[in-house]
Amino acid sequence: MPRRVDPDARRAQVADAVIDEIAAHGLRSVTLARISARSGLAIGSIRHYFGDTLREVMSFTLGVLIKRAEHRSPGLSDDPASRVAEAIVLTAPTSEQEHKENIALVEYRVMARTDPEFAADVASTSLATTEAIRALLRAALADRMIDEEALRREALLLLTLVEGFSLGSALVPAPLHEADVRAVVTSTLHRMRDAYPPRLEVPVDHLAT
Amino acid sequence: MPRRVDPDARRAQVADAVIDEIAAHGLRSVTLARISARSGLAIGSIRHYFGDTLREVMSFTLGVLIKRAEHRSPGLSDDPASRVAEAIVLTAPTSEQEHKENIALVEYRVMARTDPEFAADVASTSLATTEAIRALLRAALADRMIDEEALRREALLLLTLVEGFSLGSALVPAPLHEADVRAVVTSTLHRMRDAYPPRLEVPVDHLAT
Repeated sequence: MPRRVDPDARRAQVADAVIDEIAAHGLRSVTLARISARSGLAIGSIRHYFGDTLREVMSFTLGVLIKRAEHRSPGLSDDPASRVAEAIVLTAPTSEQEHKENIALVEYRVMARTDPEFAADVASTSLATTEAIRALLRAALADRMIDEEALRREALLLLTLVEGFSLGSALVPAPLHEADVRAVVTSTLHRMRDAYPPRLEVPVDHLAT
Repeated sequence: MPRRVDPDARRAQVADAVIDEIAAHGLRSVTLARISARSGLAIGSIRHYFGDTLREVMSFTLGVLIKRAEHRSPGLSDDPASRVAEAIVLTAPTSEQEHKENIALVEYRVMARTDPEFAADVASTSLATTEAIRALLRAALADRMIDEEALRREALLLLTLVEGFSLGSALVPAPLHEADVRAVVTSTLHRMRDAYPPRLEVPVDHLAT
């Protein structure tokens, strides 16, 4: 009886081989032969799951990277000020696997700048990150007096940290230390909140008396 | 009488064509033919100034990019706290030319991760940036009570901003707005200084009385 094969598991296995190959030798060095050697799957088998082109494999792998990056925030805190800090810490690559995935994503993003086939996926992910950070920050500063322009610039500060952790760690051999990332992010958030005075709102039930 | 040609000017012209080509189509698309088309110089002329390989041209262009990035801080303020802010603002790409040069440098840095020929130049530049930021920050916080561990993490915050401005702007079509960069950097520096109490040193001339 032939061994049953789960196609999703096979595709994920190929994507992981692509990610490992990018981390080791760069995106430009990825070939079906190298994916085959790294995954242990025959080239014919890779073609079976992805059709005839390397670009299908590359496109699928980008999708896997985006999905993994998006699903990295399972249980964020209920406190809005902690939520935004936790979300940013989660984007920073602090494990070997996240380090490899971040390297691959940085290489894809740089390539997508001049490669229309990957540009749309990359752009929509960047936009989603930007909007998520802005929404989390708005909630974290909801009890503070801050105008829209200041809020926009504080969001830019946080997004610059996200991008900085990404590029900084992609270009060194080891992942970032989570304690360092957490210290940088939480101090930035605390100082940011302290820079704006609390809103002095009279609670609704006091207005009635 | 033949027109006299300044070899340095010719090489700079070729490097600018490479930078423009990387900004427009990515590092992987650079060829002698494209450099020739963009610079208006015959391929034979490019070979005359660089020898027979594209890698010589690429290596020279990386050197030009590094030199330009290093020489972007002409007259920094005398005040240590302002100096570090100004230095970071100067690293951020806020003009069309800086935007193109930053894109090219990001592509070189990503390639250098897996290309030993460019790795040494890129690594020594990154180290120089890290050490410059640390030294400027140490001076900016010299009048504050701060231990080495906290200083290391504050330097990480600033370096993460530098990297974040670089990656963030490399992946969008326009340079950053200098006013935004300045606002983000100066608020970060002010808040950082405020987070540490002033050193309470008794001035020397008071000890004598």
